[in-house]
Amino acid sequence: MMKTAVIGAATSNFGELWDVSPRALVRQIVDHALSDAHLKISDIDAIYVGNMLSGILGNQENLGAFFSHELNLTCPAFKIEGACASGGLAFYNGLLGVRSGAFEKVLVIGVEKMTDHKPEDVALGLMGAGSSAERYAGATFPGLYALMARLHMNEFGTTEEHMAAVAVKNHYHASLNGKAHFKKPVTIEQVLQSPKIADPLKLLDCSPISDGAAAAIIVNETFAKKHPKPIWISGASVATDSLDLAGRKTLTSLTAAVTAGKRAMSEAGITPSDIDVAELHDCFTIAEIMALEDLGFYKKGKAGQAVLTGETTLGKSRLTTNTSGGLKACGHPVGATGVKQVVEIVKQLRNEAENKQVENARVGLTHNVGGSGAVAVIHIFKR
Amino acid sequence: MMKTAVIGAATSNFGELWDVSPRALVRQIVDHALSDAHLKISDIDAIYVGNMLSGILGNQENLGAFFSHELNLTCPAFKIEGACASGGLAFYNGLLGVRSGAFEKVLVIGVEKMTDHKPEDVALGLMGAGSSAERYAGATFPGLYALMARLHMNEFGTTEEHMAAVAVKNHYHASLNGKAHFKKPVTIEQVLQSPKIADPLKLLDCSPISDGAAAAIIVNETFAKKHPKPIWISGASVATDSLDLAGRKTLTSLTAAVTAGKRAMSEAGITPSDIDVAELHDCFTIAEIMALEDLGFYKKGKAGQAVLTGETTLGKSRLTTNTSGGLKACGHPVGATGVKQVVEIVKQLRNEAENKQVENARVGLTHNVGGSGAVAVIHIFKR
Repeated sequence: MMKTAVIGAATSNFGELWDVSPRALVRQIVDHALSDAHLKISDIDAIYVGNMLSGILGNQENLGAFFSHELNLTCPAFKIEGACASGGLAFYNGLLGVRSGAFEKVLVIGVEKMTDHKPEDVALGLMGAGSSAERYAGATFPGLYALMARLHMNEFGTTEEHMAAVAVKNHYHASLNGKAHFKKPVTIEQVLQSPKIADPLKLLDCSPISDGAAAAIIVNETFAKKHPKPIWISGASVATDSLDLAGRKTLTSLTAAVTAGKRAMSEAGITPSDIDVAELHDCFTIAEIMALEDLGFYKKGKAGQAVLTGETTLGKSRLTTNTSGGLKACGHPVGATGVKQVVEIVKQLRNEAENKQVENARVGLTHNVGGSGAVAVIHIFKR
Repeated sequence: MMKTAVIGAATSNFGELWDVSPRALVRQIVDHALSDAHLKISDIDAIYVGNMLSGILGNQENLGAFFSHELNLTCPAFKIEGACASGGLAFYNGLLGVRSGAFEKVLVIGVEKMTDHKPEDVALGLMGAGSSAERYAGATFPGLYALMARLHMNEFGTTEEHMAAVAVKNHYHASLNGKAHFKKPVTIEQVLQSPKIADPLKLLDCSPISDGAAAAIIVNETFAKKHPKPIWISGASVATDSLDLAGRKTLTSLTAAVTAGKRAMSEAGITPSDIDVAELHDCFTIAEIMALEDLGFYKKGKAGQAVLTGETTLGKSRLTTNTSGGLKACGHPVGATGVKQVVEIVKQLRNEAENKQVENARVGLTHNVGGSGAVAVIHIFKR
């Protein structure tokens, strides 16, 4: 299989970006990613855009051509949609584009503008990731993850403190990330006392509605070797599952993530213990606990306690998770998230993550999920 | 470059399919495509879905996982969106998936349900393919193509009769296609006397709002050689342009189609005169006239007269265009169209097109356009 690497990576600030359009946001991060890659825009052979909601919320589709023209290009350009995994899936398709030999240098863009819209419109739009049965029943994503959390608590003794510890860790990491949506640390007590959204999930267990964009440039081996710090893509896999919880074999694990994780690690020739740093899809705190178990970092029912004792916190751990702050505290502009995860891992493996740097990080993983677990995409990177 | 082929192809009936859900429609065509390919569903390695409007019209996204689960699979699955080129772009990405070595057998699905929605909602949704400036100005696609038609008439002497002849030819071809939306032939007079939609385009110059689905199965050389009638994919290219007409270099040609056409023919090692049968994106009659010129079949300004004299009509021509009836008369369920074009060419090159068969068809082309020309995807096939 052809060797491929990321040689350029950038994210915008995440948060409520009312003063900047999607066009301007994308121009900015593409400029940064190109400069990082030592390339110019005319070097790009194809564009893959990850976005979920521009159609539903803004009646704007055709984002491939939209951003290609915005960047003064006429190259092939595609929009890939897979709900909150749109960014990771765009990256995956960009990777296959390079591996196919069709393109040498691919630009992957993840972008989402959400805070300009009414929260109820955004919540309904996001339910487009789930099944119509769930939508018509009035379910929302906090409600669906609350069901999973309750079952995980009942089956494995996971507690509200365990979940709160995920929020505390990720807010702490975000406090070290100048681009995060939320930069204030929180305490276990603050999480536990925050208003209930869908019992047992409270406000501070939930990722926010955010704006943001991220870009990554994937190249083949020839171009990668010209760059001083290529980060090699050594494993990639996607798996799918039922859109609705009712169709799943289990609710305390995301089967698609288990499958994709195993395949990606096998392709990379590694085991979970080889991974130093991971960006996990913590749309809700319970989701990070399940991810830590689904990917084989912890046995079922053991991840919550591990997070509470600080095993996954920066500076204290063999495996550090969500140094960006995760979806929880860095923010969750849905189409951007999967690409931002890649950017964070690239910075970590290049030793450029500044005050949130994991010491001697050599192998990194990204875990991006669409819907309540209907699709999962895992990438593994090595320096 | 790895050799790839289509070994399975099927379309549903196109038209007003009020009694069938997208799920049922897709199950039906996937069954037919699998049987055509001599494969079973569990042989499929990945799914690429082309769809434009399920989010805007139905609040349903995540169609990759949606159809993967519907088909009892857990494989990688993606939705590719590029307006009315979504189907062709899904096929292109499926092709790269096979060429990359990631997958051996890929299922491409194009699907769109439009007639369940109010026409004004559909018209607004479709404008999601264009720019916000055009939308806010109140432009619709008939209006945009009318501007192009008027300019083509002024610059090259193209007439309303020339455009009407495209409708007459495509309705005639559709009358031979049991799956077409419109099965009645029309006359030049009927087209010219039909109500004006956006002068000079009349009702019978416009493709309809339709429901429909199509599927194609792409495999690598190893699997292709096991099939009695593989149809080889010998050229593929995508190009982009400005979403709005104001950003274009010319309005009497779709530059993206010119670029993608040249590249695809170069990859296939052919010239326009080698092509026996083509499915062209005739969303409006003027669009087929421009396509015939953009792809080098006729010199600028000569295509209209050629269509009027029957040069592209079945049984009379060296190059026959839109034997399916085209978007104009077979119907235009936007996400399905690009895949249906592939299915028609596959049937032609296998000599299985029944009473619309082009004699001794050896080389075929598909031309699929998104928006008013913002993206074009061209594929070339050989038997």
